[in-house]
Amino acid sequence: MSDNKFSHLDKKTGLPAMVDVGEKAQTQRLAIASCRVVLGKEILQQLTEGTELMTKKGPVFQTAIIAGTMGAKRTAELIPLCHPLGMDDCKVTVDVLNESEVIVRCSTKVTGKTGVEMEALTGVSVAALTIYDMCKAMSNDIVIQDIKLEEKKGGKRDFKR
Amino acid sequence: MSDNKFSHLDKKTGLPAMVDVGEKAQTQRLAIASCRVVLGKEILQQLTEGTELMTKKGPVFQTAIIAGTMGAKRTAELIPLCHPLGMDDCKVTVDVLNESEVIVRCSTKVTGKTGVEMEALTGVSVAALTIYDMCKAMSNDIVIQDIKLEEKKGGKRDFKR
Amino acid sequence: MSDNKFSHLDKKTGLPAMVDVGEKAQTQRLAIASCRVVLGKEILQQLTEGTELMTKKGPVFQTAIIAGTMGAKRTAELIPLCHPLGMDDCKVTVDVLNESEVIVRCSTKVTGKTGVEMEALTGVSVAALTIYDMCKAMSNDIVIQDIKLEEKKGGKRDFKR
Amino acid sequence: MSDNKFSHLDKKTGLPAMVDVGEKAQTQRLAIASCRVVLGKEILQQLTEGTELMTKKGPVFQTAIIAGTMGAKRTAELIPLCHPLGMDDCKVTVDVLNESEVIVRCSTKVTGKTGVEMEALTGVSVAALTIYDMCKAMSNDIVIQDIKLEEKKGGKRDFKR
Amino acid sequence: MSDNKFSHLDKKTGLPAMVDVGEKAQTQRLAIASCRVVLGKEILQQLTEGTELMTKKGPVFQTAIIAGTMGAKRTAELIPLCHPLGMDDCKVTVDVLNESEVIVRCSTKVTGKTGVEMEALTGVSVAALTIYDMCKAMSNDIVIQDIKLEEKKGGKRDFKR
Amino acid sequence: MSDNKFSHLDKKTGLPAMVDVGEKAQTQRLAIASCRVVLGKEILQQLTEGTELMTKKGPVFQTAIIAGTMGAKRTAELIPLCHPLGMDDCKVTVDVLNESEVIVRCSTKVTGKTGVEMEALTGVSVAALTIYDMCKAMSNDIVIQDIKLEEKKGGKRDFKR
Repeated sequence: MSDNKFSHLDKKTGLPAMVDVGEKAQTQRLAIASCRVVLGKEILQQLTEGTELMTKKGPVFQTAIIAGTMGAKRTAELIPLCHPLGMDDCKVTVDVLNESEVIVRCSTKVTGKTGVEMEALTGVSVAALTIYDMCKAMSNDIVIQDIKLEEKKGGKRDFKR
Repeated sequence: MSDNKFSHLDKKTGLPAMVDVGEKAQTQRLAIASCRVVLGKEILQQLTEGTELMTKKGPVFQTAIIAGTMGAKRTAELIPLCHPLGMDDCKVTVDVLNESEVIVRCSTKVTGKTGVEMEALTGVSVAALTIYDMCKAMSNDIVIQDIKLEEKKGGKRDFKR
Repeated sequence: MSDNKFSHLDKKTGLPAMVDVGEKAQTQRLAIASCRVVLGKEILQQLTEGTELMTKKGPVFQTAIIAGTMGAKRTAELIPLCHPLGMDDCKVTVDVLNESEVIVRCSTKVTGKTGVEMEALTGVSVAALTIYDMCKAMSNDIVIQDIKLEEKKGGKRDFKR
Repeated sequence: MSDNKFSHLDKKTGLPAMVDVGEKAQTQRLAIASCRVVLGKEILQQLTEGTELMTKKGPVFQTAIIAGTMGAKRTAELIPLCHPLGMDDCKVTVDVLNESEVIVRCSTKVTGKTGVEMEALTGVSVAALTIYDMCKAMSNDIVIQDIKLEEKKGGKRDFKR
Repeated sequence: MSDNKFSHLDKKTGLPAMVDVGEKAQTQRLAIASCRVVLGKEILQQLTEGTELMTKKGPVFQTAIIAGTMGAKRTAELIPLCHPLGMDDCKVTVDVLNESEVIVRCSTKVTGKTGVEMEALTGVSVAALTIYDMCKAMSNDIVIQDIKLEEKKGGKRDFKR
Repeated sequence: MSDNKFSHLDKKTGLPAMVDVGEKAQTQRLAIASCRVVLGKEILQQLTEGTELMTKKGPVFQTAIIAGTMGAKRTAELIPLCHPLGMDDCKVTVDVLNESEVIVRCSTKVTGKTGVEMEALTGVSVAALTIYDMCKAMSNDIVIQDIKLEEKKGGKRDFKR
C-alpha cells in the first residue's frame, strides 16, 4: 500500500493518520455543502401553512439552522482525522425546494492551513437530522438525500459544481 | 397552532420543546438506520483491491465504524431536542454494495422511555462523513444518499421497511 | 472540618467529592429555575416590534430556548461534582417581563436518584447568555439577574418559592 | 427586518447566523466579566471560618475557579453563534465581597478576529453555578446576581464600566 | 476469528463493536483504579512544604481531583466502545506515597448493566495528566506509572488485587 | 507562596490559573510522548497471531490509534489549565515491543504560542486505555506504564530523552 492515494492513510503503514499541515500556509478558505430532506407533501404542508410557521419559516427550520451551526463547530470532535480549526463564519439555511422537499445549505469560512469542507458537510447533516427529529412523529419515511460539496475555494484547487 | 402534530413544538406556544417522557414506561427499544456513500468506481476499487484493505475491510471502513459508534453516543449533544440516553448496544457496519457504492448500517438498542432512531441515524451519518473525509482527496463528487430508518421496535408502533 | 455541611466536600478530608447516591431510590424529580435579562428599553423594543419577531417571539428568543435546552443537557460536563443524568423533560421559555427585561424559565424532569436543580439553573444561564450574545452589539450594559431556583419536587424536601 | 441591528440575525432574512469575521484583522483582545453569588451569612461564615478553608480559600472556591476556567474554554459549544476561538489566557477569581456575598471575576484574552466577552461571561456563570451546586444542600435561597461585562479591549470600541 | 475472546471485536466479522448488554440485569457496581505519578524529590518537596499547600494538599492536588472526576464522567466519549453510563459516585484522591511519588486513586459506582472500570481508569489517568501539566515547567522527567485496576464488584466476577 | 515555580499556580495567590501566553510569539512546535501497555503473553499472542489481525495490526490497535488521535484533540477539555489549541498534525502508533507488551507513541505538532506536550501525553493515554478496554475481558492484570515525554521542540528549551 506504499502508493495509496488516501490522504488519511499513512503512506508507509496504511494506517489511519491525520494529514500533517505544519508546512502549509494559511489561506482564506470557503466551503459550501448542501443536502435535501425528503419530508413528503403532508409534512411539508403542515410546516409551511401554519400562520406562525409561514412568517418566519417556523421553529423547525430555525432549530435546524442553529443545530447545524453548532454541529459544524464540532466537526473535529466527530470526524476522527479532521484538524481542529477555528471558523470565521458559518451560515446554515433551510429552504423549501418543492412540494415535498426542503434543501439545507451550509457555508463555512476559515483562515487556516486546511479546508472547511467537512465542517460544511457536517453542518448540513446535523441540520437535516434535526429536521428529521422534529418531524419523525408524523412519518417513518423521511429520507436525507444528496449530502454533497457544492463549492470550495482557497485550497490547492477551487471547485464549483 | 394549537393542534400541530410536531412532537417537538409545544402544543400551546408552537415553540421548540423537548417531549416530556416522564410518565412513559421503560421498554427495550431497537432502531436500525442505513445510508449509502456513492464513492465512484475508482475510489472503491482502491479501497477494496489492496491486499491489506481487502482482508479486513481496511482502515477506512474501520475508522468509519468507530467514528459512527462514537457519533451515535453523542446524539443528544448534537440534536437539540433529543433526550440524553444511555445505550445498551450500538453496532455500525460498512459493506460494499456494488461497484461504486458502500452501504453503512447502524443498529442501536436502549432500555428506556424513548427510542433510539436518532442515535442510529446519527451513527450512519457520522460514519458516512468519515468515509467521505478519508476519500475526499481523490474526488469532490462523493455523495451521501438515503439516510433513512430501516426498522424500529419497542415504542408505540414497530416499523420495518 | 469533620462536621462541615457542604455535601460536595468529603466529611473526612474536606476535599471536593461527588455525593454517593448509590443507595438512594429512583424518584420522579422536577426542578424549575428562572432568571431575568435586563436588556434595556431600546433593545427590547427592537426585539418585540418587528413584524416577524412579534409573531413568533423571534429568532433571538428561539435561539435562546434551544441553547438553554442543549446547555441543560450538558450540566454534568460543566459542573464538576454533578452526577451524569438522563432527562425526561426540559422546557425553556423566554417571556417579556416589562419594558426593559425578559424572564427566562427552565423546567427539568428526571426519574433518578438525584435532583435536576443544577440542570434547570444551567439551562436558564445558557439561555440568558445566548440572549446577551445576540444583543451585545447594541449595548455593553446588558445584565443577567436573579438566577435562582423557583421550585423542586421529588427529593428529600419539596421547595416552592 | 432589513435594518435590524442584531449582529447575529442575518440582515436579509432575519434568521440567526454567525457574524462573518473573515475580513477582520487579528488583534489582542481582553474581556473581564463579573457576577455576585448571594450565599447568605450562614453559608459564607461556614465557608470562611474553617481552619482549612480559611488558609487557601477552600475547595469550594478552588473548584469554582477550575470549573469557570474550563467552562470559558467551552463557550463556543454552548452559545450557538459564538466563533470557536483559541484563548491566550483565562483567569477566574472568587473573593468574599461582604458578609453574605462572594464576587466572581473572569478575565480572558485572545489574539483573534473577534472578542472574548462571551468567554468571560460564560466563565463567571459556570464558576457561580459551581459555588451554587456545592452550597445548595444548605439553602434553596442562593441567588446569582449581576452577570455583566466589566471591561473589554482590542475590538472596535474599548469599554470600561 | 470466529472464536476470538476480545469482547469488543464482533465474533463473526472481527470488527470493532460495542458489547450488547441489552439482556443483562442492572446491578450495583464498583471499581477502583490507581496510578502513581513519579514527580521526583524536588518537585514533591515544593508541593508539600509550602505552608498553604501543606494544609489542604494544595491546589495542584485539588485541581487534579476535580479534573479526574470530570474526566471519569466523560469516559464514554473518549473510549470508543464504552457504553454511555450514569454514575452514582466518583471519588478521586491524591496522596503522597514517598519522597518522590504521589498515588492517585479513583473509585466509581454505578447501578447499571455494565461495569465502571474504564471510568475509574480514565479518572486516574486524567488526574495524573493534570498533575503532570501543573508540574511540567519544573521537569521533563515526570512519569506516570502503574495505571491499573485495584478492585471491582458487582459484575460477573469480583476482583481485588 | 510568592516564589513558587509552578507555572499553573498564580504567583501572588497560589491559586490555580492558566498561564498567560498573550505576549509569546507563534512558533512551530512538536511533542512526542510514549507509554507501554503490559498485556501479558497470552493476550498479545491472540492479538498478533490471528490471520486477520496479523496483516493490518488488527482492529484493536487501529481502534486505539483513532481513539488516541481523537483524545489528543480534546486535551484542553480534559486538562483544566491547558490552552485550547489547533493542531497541525497528530500521529498515533501502536507497536509490539516484546512478547508481552505494546508501545504507544503519539506525535503532535502545532504552530502556536504554547506547546503540545499535554496533547501528545493525552493521546497516548487514551490510546492505551482503549487497548485496555478492548482486552480487559481476558485479564484484570493489564497495566499501563511509563507515560512520558520523549521529545519536544519549538518552545523555550528543546528536549530529547
